[in-house]
Amino acid sequence: MAIRLGRGTAELASRPAILGQAAVGGQTEQEGPLGHVFAQVFAEAHLGEKCWEMAETRLQQASMSHALERAHCAPEGIDLHLGGDLLNQCSATSFALRELGIPLAGIYSACASFAQALAMGALALESGAFGKVSACASSHFCAAEKQFRFPLEFGGQAPPTAQRTATAAGAAILGTGVGPRISRVIFGKVTDLGVKNANEMGAAMAPAAWDTLKRFLQDTESKPGDFDMILTGDLGGIGSALLQELARTEAGLDIASVHQDCGLLLYDTEEQDAGVGGSGVGCSAAVLCGEIFPKLQSGELRRVLFLGTGALLSAVSPLQGESIPAVAHGVELTADS
Amino acid sequence: MAIRLGRGTAELASRPAILGQAAVGGQTEQEGPLGHVFAQVFAEAHLGEKCWEMAETRLQQASMSHALERAHCAPEGIDLHLGGDLLNQCSATSFALRELGIPLAGIYSACASFAQALAMGALALESGAFGKVSACASSHFCAAEKQFRFPLEFGGQAPPTAQRTATAAGAAILGTGVGPRISRVIFGKVTDLGVKNANEMGAAMAPAAWDTLKRFLQDTESKPGDFDMILTGDLGGIGSALLQELARTEAGLDIASVHQDCGLLLYDTEEQDAGVGGSGVGCSAAVLCGEIFPKLQSGELRRVLFLGTGALLSAVSPLQGESIPAVAHGVELTADS
Repeated sequence: MAIRLGRGTAELASRPAILGQAAVGGQTEQEGPLGHVFAQVFAEAHLGEKCWEMAETRLQQASMSHALERAHCAPEGIDLHLGGDLLNQCSATSFALRELGIPLAGIYSACASFAQALAMGALALESGAFGKVSACASSHFCAAEKQFRFPLEFGGQAPPTAQRTATAAGAAILGTGVGPRISRVIFGKVTDLGVKNANEMGAAMAPAAWDTLKRFLQDTESKPGDFDMILTGDLGGIGSALLQELARTEAGLDIASVHQDCGLLLYDTEEQDAGVGGSGVGCSAAVLCGEIFPKLQSGELRRVLFLGTGALLSAVSPLQGESIPAVAHGVELTADS
Repeated sequence: MAIRLGRGTAELASRPAILGQAAVGGQTEQEGPLGHVFAQVFAEAHLGEKCWEMAETRLQQASMSHALERAHCAPEGIDLHLGGDLLNQCSATSFALRELGIPLAGIYSACASFAQALAMGALALESGAFGKVSACASSHFCAAEKQFRFPLEFGGQAPPTAQRTATAAGAAILGTGVGPRISRVIFGKVTDLGVKNANEMGAAMAPAAWDTLKRFLQDTESKPGDFDMILTGDLGGIGSALLQELARTEAGLDIASVHQDCGLLLYDTEEQDAGVGGSGVGCSAAVLCGEIFPKLQSGELRRVLFLGTGALLSAVSPLQGESIPAVAHGVELTADS
């Protein structure tokens, strides 16, 4: 049985393990600092498909295929899949699962979806009624530009505060066995301090990240120094600075020495014209699966708090005058020993 | 601890109870056969808002407000909310939760979202780490027409196989106490037999409903006659006939005497120009919360299998030549005694 540590905060008795994981990405992602972590790279953005949406489905399928192989598991061995993406009606996930045949629980919390998938997958395992579960999330630069901004052919320019949506996916197989463990989870509250500019996602999400981090530290009686890394995904440069400032001014906490952000890890923002960093749920999913889980496996990292952050706007809500609600879900990951 | 009955099928030891619930709807819904079950009816489709999307947010907030009141609970007493809707980026849910302040796990499985919310909420409770959880789902006729078909001002005509998206929401508070219980849950697989016409949702979803029903009966060693009602939501007239035919031809089962469909219960399809019945996740959420939970409370119904059915297309996927994936999630509901 899990233990209630606070409102929406759970400690898992079974501490489910990551049995296998994989990240896949596009050309720009390979050219970045984490280019070496991808199980597969797709140089051509269509991935052999005729539309960007179906290309994103292929990203999910590729990441699942590699993760299953590494976990020595067939799709038939998975009892439940938790998946999400940014496309309207989460269609990359639904179409990817059409071929995998795993019972699907679709989730949505924008770029916090991979954190939510891990948290809900761990809770499902904790219930005792599922053998293995899988989690996957994706994003695609071209699909996101088309849906949220302009088709690429328009040649729109991104303002300097914008983040670049990653063409990437990450997948993980969870169950009983050897691997990094999920020891605690926390679900975030929707937070909105009034940012209305859809190119200021980092600023919109930083207060949500702080709210969840603050609650997690309180509920678990932890301090930032207890973690090798507090990893947000994805606040980018501006949002990361704001989170660190919120921690300093609201609670006197200096998190700069342990705080990293998936959006800043994935790209060399200056060299790669990636704005203030990466975004898109595929960014944090790929950084987790490609970089963080392996470092927990090797013991290079021992304890990581992953805070997935999502901006819960729709493509029309900013045009209707609404500010941007945001959420952050947290997963505490520990090395297996 | 829950018991694994099959792949994606769980029996819950704690049997979480529905502590309070409410349905809200629009004018057309009030004029239907279930007009008397709504806690609140909104005669004006904008609900005082300037856009349809925010009107749907108000539906969610109203249903949650009534459900919380009936469960004698403040929002602060809820540890986790599971919510979903059909709008792009599930925005009705995100904006509704901005004011409620409950930790949010957003979910998406189209019109199966309320079934998924109940199932995941029950699993969360089963883990032991949450006190009370809430579930809510909504749809809005005008928002859905604008997003998936044409703005109302266009005056588009629906083909005879189309269903009418309900303007409605349902909300339920789950926890330990007196009320109808969730005894078993099942998560569905994505099923796609190749239907490409987005106005044939019932036909696209019937195979998913059958797949989940068949697996549930096998996993639980049950037969249709063990239930007072097998309630799908929402197959409409055509999909319901197809489900009954699939059960007959594939397994020799006659489910006609116990099968009901939320989409056929909500409207008088002939009198109300509602096509082959209602649809939209608000339809099944409202029928469950307005009609079924109260009948389980009174003992008029003793055991109900609710199969939420969702068509997982996006607004663009049929235009890109894709067929319609579908999913059905199941929740077994029993009277409290």
